[in-house]
Amino acid sequence: MLYSAARSNISLLAQQAQEFSPALTACFAETPEIEIAAREALSEVALGEQGLLDVATHPDVDIVVAATSGLVGLAPTLAAINAGKTIALANKETLVMAGHLVMQAAQEAGVSILPVDSEHSAIWQCLRGEETAEVNRLILTASGGPFRRATLDQLRSVTVAQALAHPTWLMGPKITIDSATLMNKGLEVLEAHWLFGIPYARIDVVVHPESIIHSMVEFVDGSLKMQASLPSMHLPIQDALSYPLRLNTSGTGLVSELRWSEVAQLNFETLDRTRFPCFRLAREAAKRGGTYPSVLVGADEEAVALFLAEKIGFLEIAELIEGVLERHHPVVQPDIPAILEASAWARRTAQELYETIYQRNFL
Amino acid sequence: MLYSAARSNISLLAQQAQEFSPALTACFAETPEIEIAAREALSEVALGEQGLLDVATHPDVDIVVAATSGLVGLAPTLAAINAGKTIALANKETLVMAGHLVMQAAQEAGVSILPVDSEHSAIWQCLRGEETAEVNRLILTASGGPFRRATLDQLRSVTVAQALAHPTWLMGPKITIDSATLMNKGLEVLEAHWLFGIPYARIDVVVHPESIIHSMVEFVDGSLKMQASLPSMHLPIQDALSYPLRLNTSGTGLVSELRWSEVAQLNFETLDRTRFPCFRLAREAAKRGGTYPSVLVGADEEAVALFLAEKIGFLEIAELIEGVLERHHPVVQPDIPAILEASAWARRTAQELYETIYQRNFL
Repeated sequence: MLYSAARSNISLLAQQAQEFSPALTACFAETPEIEIAAREALSEVALGEQGLLDVATHPDVDIVVAATSGLVGLAPTLAAINAGKTIALANKETLVMAGHLVMQAAQEAGVSILPVDSEHSAIWQCLRGEETAEVNRLILTASGGPFRRATLDQLRSVTVAQALAHPTWLMGPKITIDSATLMNKGLEVLEAHWLFGIPYARIDVVVHPESIIHSMVEFVDGSLKMQASLPSMHLPIQDALSYPLRLNTSGTGLVSELRWSEVAQLNFETLDRTRFPCFRLAREAAKRGGTYPSVLVGADEEAVALFLAEKIGFLEIAELIEGVLERHHPVVQPDIPAILEASAWARRTAQELYETIYQRNFL
Repeated sequence: MLYSAARSNISLLAQQAQEFSPALTACFAETPEIEIAAREALSEVALGEQGLLDVATHPDVDIVVAATSGLVGLAPTLAAINAGKTIALANKETLVMAGHLVMQAAQEAGVSILPVDSEHSAIWQCLRGEETAEVNRLILTASGGPFRRATLDQLRSVTVAQALAHPTWLMGPKITIDSATLMNKGLEVLEAHWLFGIPYARIDVVVHPESIIHSMVEFVDGSLKMQASLPSMHLPIQDALSYPLRLNTSGTGLVSELRWSEVAQLNFETLDRTRFPCFRLAREAAKRGGTYPSVLVGADEEAVALFLAEKIGFLEIAELIEGVLERHHPVVQPDIPAILEASAWARRTAQELYETIYQRNFL
């Protein structure tokens, strides 16, 4: 039986309901208009955060695909874990901000957190049949984004349109900007740390512009394993859902076959932390721990929104985040309220910093 | 406890005995001189084929590293399997010629055949935690050898010295020539077929000049796994011996660490069967089965010896082998005597063909 959820896109929900006939649909947005539209278009509807909780913990549910953006999914994901559901996790913030709580809950409930992200799916696949104790390093690959070859000077004058044109992946605007600043790769380092229990000092990133090799694991004997496929989210989503089986898609056209006669060359470069300070900030926040990663995420959300609104420049995204991180008084081992508070504080502080510093200087 | 074996190099055996104090050393060569020298230099010696059998089946032995060249190791390897020993297999002919017998014996005895070859070790590692039924293709990588870019015309006038200069691997003369003709890659396809139980139609080869990715497995969902390391035989040997553990060699210098800042580019090309007919012949012999692979191996040994002696040209290696294969009357499901007879027939026939055709034309 299928259970679905969304924020507010009732017409898409209705279309999906026709195709998949979910037993219950959760609709997070709780405005009167949405409620009326939802009850009209869908047979069984649950609204608001309670709606997400109902769907995520329903007794008929085996696996919950947590694919909300931002913090919305945190409470429903924890509830699903406590209800013993397998989690297919597509949301980054859940682990970045509350990795210590989520992984502990998963361990206590004996449930698996399966990655739905090309890099983490790659590592997960490479670790099958292997011992975590025999891992020397996780090596995440990064496409390098649209500004891989840009100088610091060029980065200063990057436009929103340029930053939204990702060379290998088609994604939403927030994650596309995070990919251009390499903040996204920094967040993935935090995710990998929590998912696989590997210390930060043993997680590296290498730039690989073709996005064919999605990540690697280096073992203590010097052997490396890598996972590869053409860049498409289909495979990591499918693998999380079909696990422990691999779905036979050969000949279906669902997953494009990688042909070595066409993929003639794979390139690798080191990541330049000077030109991509967001990556450095993410690693720094990871090392400091506590509420720092939550502040990183909150400040980044605000800074990217300001950049997308053409209110700050591309390099000022990192400056703004760094300014917020510097002003933070952290909480060690934060609980959910402390995490949410730190994130909200970071958004407010980023907005204040923008108003006091950048608003005057920009344009 | 360690047991050792060799053909006739008594001085090296004595040197190794000082370092490792084997309980028993087998010496395959049985001349009176070697016997005297062996009994003088070593405390416990067993001679001839019986010597190899004694060492390979000794009750104290857990794992037998079968690293003889050619056919010498076939009977001792089968004896070791029947005695329940784990086999670390470095010898190609054993599986190429008698794969059906060896794998059946291993299955009946419940023993593992662990590959000691970079390509097969790579596949073996990629298959850990995976189901053979979910394999779509095995993809062996080939360096392409020293003549990867040579034209057919250039190949015609290749010298022995040129053929012995392999770009990435340092090996003995026979296997180096087999690498230059890509016969070696053809034999590896047969080995992979027997080791992993994958049909020939699902085993491909891709040319990868850097020899960093040692082979790949493509699964039915379109996901590829690859194993990589700097080209060195240390790792595949070590992994077979330490299995199921991975030995921690980081910092020891035993296995060189692969640095992506130095390995900046990996290239891939399709294998040209026109310029490398030995590869085509190996695939053809594999498809025909029976005694054809044994004839392939026997004819190749003779042809490579004639090339190394500067009696035939580089492209005539394949011509000679093809001539022998054409003249063969195969035995289906051959037993050991039939295999040995087919191989001996192939060597004789190659020599005869050389004498009747090439001796007159060459030089």
